[in-house]
Amino acid sequence: MSTKTNPSNSFEDFSVGQHIVHATPRSITHGDASLYTALFGPRFAVQSSEVFAKAIGYTQAPLDDMLVFHMVFGKTVPDISLNAIANLGYADCRFLKPVFPGDTVSTTSEVIGLKENSNRQTGTVYVRSTGKNQHGGTVLEFVRWVMVRKRDETASGGEAVMPELPAQVTPEALGTALPPLNLQGYDLALAGSPHRFGDYTAGEKIDHVDGMTIEDAEHQIAARLFQNTAKVHFNLHTEAQGRFGKRIVYGGHIISLARALSFNGLANAFHVAAINGGRHVAPSFAGDTIYAWSEILETAPIPGRDDAGALRIRSIATKNKPCADFPMMKDAKAYDDNVVLDLDYWALIPV
Amino acid sequence: MSTKTNPSNSFEDFSVGQHIVHATPRSITHGDASLYTALFGPRFAVQSSEVFAKAIGYTQAPLDDMLVFHMVFGKTVPDISLNAIANLGYADCRFLKPVFPGDTVSTTSEVIGLKENSNRQTGTVYVRSTGKNQHGGTVLEFVRWVMVRKRDETASGGEAVMPELPAQVTPEALGTALPPLNLQGYDLALAGSPHRFGDYTAGEKIDHVDGMTIEDAEHQIAARLFQNTAKVHFNLHTEAQGRFGKRIVYGGHIISLARALSFNGLANAFHVAAINGGRHVAPSFAGDTIYAWSEILETAPIPGRDDAGALRIRSIATKNKPCADFPMMKDAKAYDDNVVLDLDYWALIPV
Amino acid sequence: MSTKTNPSNSFEDFSVGQHIVHATPRSITHGDASLYTALFGPRFAVQSSEVFAKAIGYTQAPLDDMLVFHMVFGKTVPDISLNAIANLGYADCRFLKPVFPGDTVSTTSEVIGLKENSNRQTGTVYVRSTGKNQHGGTVLEFVRWVMVRKRDETASGGEAVMPELPAQVTPEALGTALPPLNLQGYDLALAGSPHRFGDYTAGEKIDHVDGMTIEDAEHQIAARLFQNTAKVHFNLHTEAQGRFGKRIVYGGHIISLARALSFNGLANAFHVAAINGGRHVAPSFAGDTIYAWSEILETAPIPGRDDAGALRIRSIATKNKPCADFPMMKDAKAYDDNVVLDLDYWALIPV
Repeated sequence: MSTKTNPSNSFEDFSVGQHIVHATPRSITHGDASLYTALFGPRFAVQSSEVFAKAIGYTQAPLDDMLVFHMVFGKTVPDISLNAIANLGYADCRFLKPVFPGDTVSTTSEVIGLKENSNRQTGTVYVRSTGKNQHGGTVLEFVRWVMVRKRDETASGGEAVMPELPAQVTPEALGTALPPLNLQGYDLALAGSPHRFGDYTAGEKIDHVDGMTIEDAEHQIAARLFQNTAKVHFNLHTEAQGRFGKRIVYGGHIISLARALSFNGLANAFHVAAINGGRHVAPSFAGDTIYAWSEILETAPIPGRDDAGALRIRSIATKNKPCADFPMMKDAKAYDDNVVLDLDYWALIPV
Repeated sequence: MSTKTNPSNSFEDFSVGQHIVHATPRSITHGDASLYTALFGPRFAVQSSEVFAKAIGYTQAPLDDMLVFHMVFGKTVPDISLNAIANLGYADCRFLKPVFPGDTVSTTSEVIGLKENSNRQTGTVYVRSTGKNQHGGTVLEFVRWVMVRKRDETASGGEAVMPELPAQVTPEALGTALPPLNLQGYDLALAGSPHRFGDYTAGEKIDHVDGMTIEDAEHQIAARLFQNTAKVHFNLHTEAQGRFGKRIVYGGHIISLARALSFNGLANAFHVAAINGGRHVAPSFAGDTIYAWSEILETAPIPGRDDAGALRIRSIATKNKPCADFPMMKDAKAYDDNVVLDLDYWALIPV
Repeated sequence: MSTKTNPSNSFEDFSVGQHIVHATPRSITHGDASLYTALFGPRFAVQSSEVFAKAIGYTQAPLDDMLVFHMVFGKTVPDISLNAIANLGYADCRFLKPVFPGDTVSTTSEVIGLKENSNRQTGTVYVRSTGKNQHGGTVLEFVRWVMVRKRDETASGGEAVMPELPAQVTPEALGTALPPLNLQGYDLALAGSPHRFGDYTAGEKIDHVDGMTIEDAEHQIAARLFQNTAKVHFNLHTEAQGRFGKRIVYGGHIISLARALSFNGLANAFHVAAINGGRHVAPSFAGDTIYAWSEILETAPIPGRDDAGALRIRSIATKNKPCADFPMMKDAKAYDDNVVLDLDYWALIPV
């Protein structure tokens, strides 16, 4: 049998400090931006309009931050999580430079932690993944950890190394991807909302109202666009025999739907500067309708900037349950059965 | 509860003369053009080929007129028709300048009429919507009227103001979006048909032969591309409980399918110059197969031009019924049960 | 009834030597490239990254070869195979020049053979189709033959003319679309595999492992992108009454899925230089999951080149059957019931 195919990695194949160059650098184009709009429906003016973006200080309209995230994430899948049992969490995700149509993003990862599970069948792998543009500038960094199978239950999983991860990205670290804003050029009517940084307060909850139903063709088209190869999204023949009997929607698809829905209430919070953490609480499937609501966890000025502030936002996405009453936990320990995403991120918004 | 979300407008929120700036200006790109082709299947040579377009006098291949229409229409939805009960009609729609990939279109509307219905629960709102490019030039104008709910049945709906609307756009008003054509450069073989202006006669009926089945993923992808936010297109969770039990296809989707199908019989009528009126006779759903036929209502020279003439075309689209026998009315008053669209438009065609 | 629609051609309408100009020249853009990625999931670095492509000697990232093939093929459908009963075979398909985003491709065909079938109801039409770019350079040529209905069973089908077709494209004819490669710039890690020309041997079999399920929306979107008008792909209303009761996936869709899956095992074989022959063994439908495996039939140096060699590859695609045991024939004469494609092609790969 040929050994030329990529079997991806088992727990034993990772070592702390290991540097992985991921295949398939990606030039991201206007075509990708159009597909992103068509698949998720974002309406933020800065990413939608060259004229709006230039009027506030960009050289051109930037790509949606989450499109960049998915492109970088997708490249890590064949090496990190092709056969992962679970995508456990994210931390310290920072968007460091804007990415524009025509830029080429390359992705590498460093293994920063390893911990065998007590069943000796699986372990957790922590990686810091980095996307760089064609000039070598880092556009995105994030840590994620996944549960990966061991090849050999009887082998030692080695000493546990747990990375120190920040509970959140601090406001000081935000905003390098946001050019100095020309606020005179920021047209609130075109942006779709009069509400600026000062209008939001910690504790405020916003129901994003609308729901968006997912089709198999949609999430497959999206995941292929991102060159994400995780088998569970694409293969009905095997998934029909699997735990759910159907294909599972890429978790990032839900993040992008929730983010696009959040325009209704957060229209001026146009730039995702960081993701503090996130949890895919439950899987979503074709036919599910995604709703979302957000709580403003914190409002923070950005040191050294007087053009924009930061909103720390917790966004909850549900499936098949409107969010007018802000569903989250059903009891002290467990999420409501319809919650699929719990995301903690920083978005920047003009003052 | 947050008041930051857009509740859209009720009948009482509109006043005659009111000027509305719609959110999310839109740069329309080659990516959008590709998606338009992929979603509807147009084959008109001018929009498909840079070389063909330049050979006849364009500076570059223009975007499909209906793509521009949908982009402008989509922007009006959150303010005009988010919760509309019905999209009642169109009038005086004129395509005034070509739109090219890279152009940015912004949309505004003016309320030009208001009329409370006798049940006092609803009213009709007439708006003239205008799309302008990045140079401030008007690329598209149209009037539409929608039935909108009143917030308060007991309140007075005010005095009725009905706009004067032309029954049709006159030939004199056509053609500003069409550059002077170099007819030597117009290759009929590449265009796909030998039939020019003089070959069509009023009363002629053309069956466009082919049928195109709609999938939910397709109409959702299209409507999101246009940043059209009407809930009925996207939310199976609520629509399953609604009147039809399923999502409704955006009416403009049917127009674009009918227009793309019309290539077979009208291949040289490459530019939609105006829409005189249109009626979405019945809703369409995923699984429906759209067919279309057209009648040439009128052929008109365009004053001052000897390169192109105008065909006034009535296009009827059906669902699940071929159009070889030109289905339209089932009796004096009612459309055939399978008719979904009755559209009256002007297309320009080389002489 | 109008005679303005295209009824396509019956067997009697073709004559040997006939030259056909196909309608709708096509500018192929970054938008089309994004859709191709989103629909099929290719991950070859050269087509994905401007930076990678330039580093090895391209002026810019070329379009995927099969995207060009489908665009050219699509244009021939209205004239050659709109009502064809079967697409019987391909031969002598050569990719002669790279095609880049922005190029415009026009298509013509020459009838090179005709043979009435003994039932006198149908005949086989052989055409050589040619795609040229805006500079008049031939980018692609291929022969295909289709079974077409006769209008009149009683009429003579004329004398049979059978073209001489090569059993395969010879290595001497390969490589004109591949610029001289700067192998120092070829980064194997970014390309996704360490395996170069010398690492493959004739007789080697590679299971491409992954499976991809097809949705109706996906194959319709793809075929419309290619402006392929074959009715069987799009019209559920008629196909529901047809032989299979459902829409048939465009055969080229399977080729592109198999080619994209082949990245896993053939990551450096980034350029399809020729197709020696191909057979759509059985139809595929929405819901089918496509798998693929390949056998290296031959490895050949390319005369005059020391930067790349040629792999002659036989790719077998199946539906709903993994390829770990390389399924092909079920007995001496018949393919395994799950095989849908048997393709013989040349791919070029750095030495």
